[in-house]
Amino acid sequence: MLIRILGAAAGGGFPQWNCGCPNCDGLRRGTIRARPRSQVTIALSGDADPWVLVNCGPEIRAQIEAFPALWPRAPRHSPIAAIVLTCGDLDHTLGLLSLRENHPLTVLATETVRHGFVEGNALYRTLERFPGQVTWRTLVAGLEVPLDHPDPAQATLFATPVPVPGKPPVHLEGRAPAREDQAVGLIVRDLQGRRLAAFPGAGGITPAMRAAMAGADALIFDGTFWSEDELARPGLMDRRAAEMAHLPIDGPAGSLALLADLAVARKLFVHINNTNPILREDGAERARVEAAGWTVAEDGMEIAL
Amino acid sequence: MLIRILGAAAGGGFPQWNCGCPNCDGLRRGTIRARPRSQVTIALSGDADPWVLVNCGPEIRAQIEAFPALWPRAPRHSPIAAIVLTCGDLDHTLGLLSLRENHPLTVLATETVRHGFVEGNALYRTLERFPGQVTWRTLVAGLEVPLDHPDPAQATLFATPVPVPGKPPVHLEGRAPAREDQAVGLIVRDLQGRRLAAFPGAGGITPAMRAAMAGADALIFDGTFWSEDELARPGLMDRRAAEMAHLPIDGPAGSLALLADLAVARKLFVHINNTNPILREDGAERARVEAAGWTVAEDGMEIAL
Repeated sequence: MLIRILGAAAGGGFPQWNCGCPNCDGLRRGTIRARPRSQVTIALSGDADPWVLVNCGPEIRAQIEAFPALWPRAPRHSPIAAIVLTCGDLDHTLGLLSLRENHPLTVLATETVRHGFVEGNALYRTLERFPGQVTWRTLVAGLEVPLDHPDPAQATLFATPVPVPGKPPVHLEGRAPAREDQAVGLIVRDLQGRRLAAFPGAGGITPAMRAAMAGADALIFDGTFWSEDELARPGLMDRRAAEMAHLPIDGPAGSLALLADLAVARKLFVHINNTNPILREDGAERARVEAAGWTVAEDGMEIAL
Repeated sequence: MLIRILGAAAGGGFPQWNCGCPNCDGLRRGTIRARPRSQVTIALSGDADPWVLVNCGPEIRAQIEAFPALWPRAPRHSPIAAIVLTCGDLDHTLGLLSLRENHPLTVLATETVRHGFVEGNALYRTLERFPGQVTWRTLVAGLEVPLDHPDPAQATLFATPVPVPGKPPVHLEGRAPAREDQAVGLIVRDLQGRRLAAFPGAGGITPAMRAAMAGADALIFDGTFWSEDELARPGLMDRRAAEMAHLPIDGPAGSLALLADLAVARKLFVHINNTNPILREDGAERARVEAAGWTVAEDGMEIAL
């Protein structure tokens, strides 16, 4: 299995357009050791071609152009066979509207995520220009589905969705009831039996998540925030990590502690918010996560399992 | 007045994610003389600061980061005072949803364009997180409005909207009746009396448009297609330029002929589709438009009037 991180940042990217925090300001001015990151999209392939996207961030066009394996090979073509959505947040989904251009798409999502993106969204009609422009395939917790081809006999990648503690996307808060399938992680396996546990967003770690992750060859996990009060303390935003359904990395109940004993060879943090101190390559927090065996994902990173 | 072209391409950008036409393929492989372009957004300033965006394409985040004048100067800040929408097409508007992050925005649009973006668009609620997150100001044909400040006494840029032959955006086709204010051009003036005629999308040239453009210090005009059948001839898409409300450049009724006698010092084509032969820097079509006094806009180009 080939894994390519097309974008490793949380919503807003790094730097974020309206943010002059020490991280964003330092990155722009070149005064800190850090690299820019676009919003979270991951490409997977079981056998070099075709590719599957896990989520589809707003910067998908530039992300595709930065990775030749995703370039078209005919006047109208794309090696992207399917797109899997793990939740309905705009930083994970908005790029779908940039993949219009009269191209047939296959999108896999839970019923709640599909409904939240399609219903009451007039902009979505740009993906309804012709019958069958988008083929939706439904993700159901615990049921394995083929990813890169609807026929399991022809697929090279398969995924089992695992519910994660989450919340409805911001644009549906207060409008949609919380549902168990509003956010999922994926256990992806290839034909050689290699397994990737992809949990780019998670508000906590359930026993079922732990059981599903255990023994995976690689884990991609929510690295949005270092601490609960990362936004509130400097006065950037009056919301705690838990309210935004992101388990912080640090602390006794953080992901670093909770996943310390997990038997997984490679562990990567993605969906990293611009305020997160692990973005500083020479910082103490970066040293701590690396000492604990984690990699801080960045755009363009590739892993072969 | 300072004019900065943040993006010069039509919807899909150049190259376009699913397009392997000779232009896109040649650009990716470095076998043609051409430069990449992101989707159309233009920044204007009357006095260095603040800035006004004309339209807001899907790639707005990268476009802001590529232009230091648009960087924030405080932990939460943006020098972008307002965004003017000339139509409701997604390549001109989708970037608004990437300017969320709890930031107050001022958006100027006609009633039809505002309605088309806001109504029935669940995603728009991400811009309704707090009261007054977006302040809409209404553009009315023929009525001059201050751009960079609501108080005319404090503004340095003013715009008069001029209706252009257009059509509803793709996602509203067949749902919204055609209205005169569904697409406009802008006559922008600064305090020194310099004038920019900005018509990034136009399905034709009316006498009122000609009268408004005449004598401007610069003209930015729809350069989407070279010819009527540019998409249909190579079989890329079964639609003519006229059906897409874009006046082609070439031909006896094209913009090159119709605007040949217009008294404007600087003329730029923007919103250039990936199939347009004027993108080839050493091509015959590029030579023709340049010989006629036109510039083919590219990302990062700046003009001071």
